[in-house]
Amino acid sequence: MGNNTDIPVTVIGLGLMGQALAGTFLKAGHPVTVWNRTASKADPLLDAGARLAPTIGDALESGPLTIVCLTDYQAVREVLDTTEPDGTTLVNLTSGSSAQAREAARWAEGRGARYLDGAIMAVPPAIGTDEAVILHSGPRPDFEAHESALRTLGTVTYLGEDPGLASLYDVAGLAMMWGVLNAWLQGTALLGTAGVDAATYAPFARQIAAVVAGWLPGYAEQIDRGSYPAEVSALETDARAMAHLVEESEAAGVDAGLPKLFRAMADRAIAAGHGAEQYPVLIDEFRIPRIPR
Amino acid sequence: MGNNTDIPVTVIGLGLMGQALAGTFLKAGHPVTVWNRTASKADPLLDAGARLAPTIGDALESGPLTIVCLTDYQAVREVLDTTEPDGTTLVNLTSGSSAQAREAARWAEGRGARYLDGAIMAVPPAIGTDEAVILHSGPRPDFEAHESALRTLGTVTYLGEDPGLASLYDVAGLAMMWGVLNAWLQGTALLGTAGVDAATYAPFARQIAAVVAGWLPGYAEQIDRGSYPAEVSALETDARAMAHLVEESEAAGVDAGLPKLFRAMADRAIAAGHGAEQYPVLIDEFRIPRIPR
Ligand SMILES: NC(=O)c1ccc[n+]([C@@H]2O[C@H](COP(=O)([O-])OP(=O)(O)OC[C@H]3O[C@@H](n4cnc5c(N)ncnc54)[C@H](OP(=O)(O)O)[C@@H]3O)[C@@H](O)[C@H]2O)c1
Ligand SMILES: NC(=O)c1ccc[n+]([C@@H]2O[C@H](COP(=O)([O-])OP(=O)(O)OC[C@H]3O[C@@H](n4cnc5c(N)ncnc54)[C@H](OP(=O)(O)O)[C@@H]3O)[C@@H](O)[C@H]2O)c1
Repeated sequence: MGNNTDIPVTVIGLGLMGQALAGTFLKAGHPVTVWNRTASKADPLLDAGARLAPTIGDALESGPLTIVCLTDYQAVREVLDTTEPDGTTLVNLTSGSSAQAREAARWAEGRGARYLDGAIMAVPPAIGTDEAVILHSGPRPDFEAHESALRTLGTVTYLGEDPGLASLYDVAGLAMMWGVLNAWLQGTALLGTAGVDAATYAPFARQIAAVVAGWLPGYAEQIDRGSYPAEVSALETDARAMAHLVEESEAAGVDAGLPKLFRAMADRAIAAGHGAEQYPVLIDEFRIPRIPR
Repeated sequence: MGNNTDIPVTVIGLGLMGQALAGTFLKAGHPVTVWNRTASKADPLLDAGARLAPTIGDALESGPLTIVCLTDYQAVREVLDTTEPDGTTLVNLTSGSSAQAREAARWAEGRGARYLDGAIMAVPPAIGTDEAVILHSGPRPDFEAHESALRTLGTVTYLGEDPGLASLYDVAGLAMMWGVLNAWLQGTALLGTAGVDAATYAPFARQIAAVVAGWLPGYAEQIDRGSYPAEVSALETDARAMAHLVEESEAAGVDAGLPKLFRAMADRAIAAGHGAEQYPVLIDEFRIPRIPR
């Protein structure tokens, strides 16, 4: 699919992110219309060739593709609630929950509007580069109709029809990010007590993370089959080693909250009779709602 | 350094792992002497050409390099306590804590013995392949004297003079492993509630883990400098997104223990005045011993 830069694009919301989105479309040659509650934030974009819509209604009538990027879904509701956006496809890149995304999709459907929900996994300076991962979910034909223009913004991914998927993948990806970072900090703190620099430990941590990441597709098959033979090691073996991690952390004066949480999850699965199975059997401990601790 | 397979090797302990170690040395052509409390476990190795030492004292006198691989350090003490292993270099690959490793090194020094501590990050079938990562720490000359023979067992790494380092890197690496796996399970459970297969989500999780792992060397420099400018994003921004992860998890009926722990660590750093700094500033929350929660 070629990148047709004649397609007019409208950007609603000119905060840090909205300005980066509008500026990137302009640089790529798209005709760009912008709207923002505080109109003065449009000035640099107008200098670069954008058109300022005098009203939100005018903005929504100015082209087939409208990007929305406001603080949160409450702001989106305040801006759009009195409009009839039936002549454009809304692509809402505002961060929010999957429930909010689904509700916004229902609202749009009720107005005869086409609606895609999205999530931006990038900071504003990365917009327009391959590093900017932007997730989309909603009706596939609407995505495909605008995919070419959306690719201007970065690495664009379509996840499925459920408009909540973009938000869910977004927070799941962030969980992975914090999981890697916190585990790395745990190891860095432990080794720091033995005089090892963070820079000395980091390549080792990096390698382990990459190796374990490589196991995920195979482990995922176990989850989808619901069968967890201990091909490589049993959960009980992990639990014993977790106890060592807790002890090392406590002996070194390093926070043991993360190791204890690993241990508590594993112990629950072992108590449920899964000690001889492989690690991904823990999925059932994540799935089952628990009494708050 | 060539791999001199004439060097005799002694293996003390013929459990699952000890048998794999001895068998790998034999296959590589080394003369191998073995000893085990339960002598019958040596039978397959004797068939393959190993020599059975009649006593532990004889075993320790049969060559310049002695690998020890027993259940735990308590077993090592029971086996070695009455011996005088002053004619061989002990390489203790038994799993244990850094404190136990340092204590064993002191014990060996007291007997005029050379001692390296090690940790095996592999399962027995991987021994003898590059996948078997084996960590060593202790006097560098002792490692270098036996490096060639040790390479027979897998990917061999020397970490430093402190004999506790092998154990510390081992548990730190395991922490990374569980960090990646638990974060992946969190995301898999969340997306599962929206009907997404584990196999569909896994490549996304794998990619995020690898990307974040690539940040670690740069983040480590911030820790070593003790300076955390928010070049990419501020901890406060992470904390807000953590709240979304907690909400999504709770709304979907997915265990929120891990997201809440992320949040609690971040909140502590923010309360300590670090909200505008970058994520690795959290290292201070890992370092500081806390009142147990
Ligand atoms: N910045 C990032 O690094 C980043 C990364 C990924 C995702 N995101 C997401 O992108 C979205 C926008 O972020 P941002 O960084 O651009 O935020 P921002 O700089 O704070 O801008 C917020 C925008 O929302 C508008 N707004 C807020 N409340 C409004 C209301 N009630 N009515 C009308 N307009 C309202 C603001 O208009 P005024 O100018 O009139 O105040 C402004 O255009 C957020 O959902 C954020 O989570 C941001
Ligand atoms: N297996 C793995 O996947 C794996 C991976 C990484 C590290 N490791 C580590 O490697 C070490 C050995 O593991 P393994 O799998 O070989 O365990 P194992 O199969 O249970 O074997 C234990 C060995 O220790 C001996 N032993 C235990 N207590 C003793 C005592 N009081 N006196 C004399 N000998 C004693 C046993 O002798 P008997 O035969 O007489 O009982 C046997 O040789 C452990 O520290 C383990 O954590 C194992």
